[in-house]
Amino acid sequence: MGKVEVIPLEGIPEVEEGADVAGLVLASIGRSRVRLRDGDVVVLKQKIVSKAEGRVVRLDAVRPGAEARRLAEAEGKDPRLMELVLRESVRVVRRGHGVVITETTHGFVCANAGVDQSNVGEGRACLLPLDSDLSARRVRSALESRTGRRLAVVVTDTFGRPWRRGQTDVAIGCSGIDPLLSYRGRQDKFGYPLRVTEPAVVDEVAGAAELVMGKLEGVPAAVVRGVVFVRGEGGVRSLIMAKDKDLFR
Amino acid sequence: MGKVEVIPLEGIPEVEEGADVAGLVLASIGRSRVRLRDGDVVVLKQKIVSKAEGRVVRLDAVRPGAEARRLAEAEGKDPRLMELVLRESVRVVRRGHGVVITETTHGFVCANAGVDQSNVGEGRACLLPLDSDLSARRVRSALESRTGRRLAVVVTDTFGRPWRRGQTDVAIGCSGIDPLLSYRGRQDKFGYPLRVTEPAVVDEVAGAAELVMGKLEGVPAAVVRGVVFVRGEGGVRSLIMAKDKDLFR
Repeated sequence: MGKVEVIPLEGIPEVEEGADVAGLVLASIGRSRVRLRDGDVVVLKQKIVSKAEGRVVRLDAVRPGAEARRLAEAEGKDPRLMELVLRESVRVVRRGHGVVITETTHGFVCANAGVDQSNVGEGRACLLPLDSDLSARRVRSALESRTGRRLAVVVTDTFGRPWRRGQTDVAIGCSGIDPLLSYRGRQDKFGYPLRVTEPAVVDEVAGAAELVMGKLEGVPAAVVRGVVFVRGEGGVRSLIMAKDKDLFR
Repeated sequence: MGKVEVIPLEGIPEVEEGADVAGLVLASIGRSRVRLRDGDVVVLKQKIVSKAEGRVVRLDAVRPGAEARRLAEAEGKDPRLMELVLRESVRVVRRGHGVVITETTHGFVCANAGVDQSNVGEGRACLLPLDSDLSARRVRSALESRTGRRLAVVVTDTFGRPWRRGQTDVAIGCSGIDPLLSYRGRQDKFGYPLRVTEPAVVDEVAGAAELVMGKLEGVPAAVVRGVVFVRGEGGVRSLIMAKDKDLFR
């Protein structure tokens, strides 16, 4: 394996509904000295994808139901925000200490179903894309047709995790890249079978990209170059653990 | 933020007990065209650290107790391996489908307490370092005194996670780098407070490094260059979530 480079894509303006995300990425790349190459992974923060897809909601247009009001009261939250969280979720997984962790309609387990009030302006909240694999596929397809390169696209969001403080960026959508590398059936140098070794390469790419994107710098995209991956269209959806194998449901 | 580079350190030989890990890293760097710079993060796989610290155990020297035999029977495991897992753990968190997830003496929650039979040879198992922050500190100190550079060291291992298939590399020890970047008290561009935003930079560095280390290539170390981090000595121990805040205990 060679070197991996993580290149921030700067100067992408505030994204409005209907924006051409692929075009914004290519304009940023055009201004830099980067040229896309076959095998590059273009990483997009969820927020620009959601904004382009019109997934920003005005809180004063949301009428909270009884469950949302109860949850908001218990955890010290805005009931309208909790209403959005419940609409985006199939169940509440845990709550306490002002944190509400749900399973989203996509199958992700995260705080507030990924609904987020930062960087969208007063009185608004941003929801996850309805189908973040599809979002990634559309951008990949547009990037590939305009550049002639074979690319992958990963859409990322910032999730907490059990047992450890802090958050890491993980993949919530991908296209052109299989989420896992599989070593099943391979052996180590002593001949020991690597039975359970399946690196979640999309999540490692997501975390690597966050290192150059930060939270304040207005860098909503990056190129990760040099990653060894398998081309595939399973999407991040295929990464969700089957319910009957999940020890943490 | 600028570019981040992830550089594999190749040609590091099989590590024996008592090996000088810092020396092996510097020899690999010396053979490449990389020179360490201030702010570089040197990432080491747990296995070379554990091997150098003599944390490899012969299974035929392990006498399993009643609990280990019970667990092995239930999950289809080697009872001697289960005995090691229990000795390295403070509690079993979950088990099922042939997986035993425990909380280690360090506070990590992972499969088999990190005890692993790959890449150590037939009839042997490798345990996590007793104190992986101290392991990182020793290597950092040796690297800094021999190079005159200000460096960070992260020791990584491969952990599964709830709800998602596959594994990512995470930090199990660090020195010279604060595990978290904190945006507490900072505001987004609309003035919204970023209350809970603390990227776990050590874990993102660990995942990025895994992208160049792989599982088969015999690359047990990497340099991650260009990362924005805060110098600190809290270690990965400071990343463990306090029991009273942990919704997943």
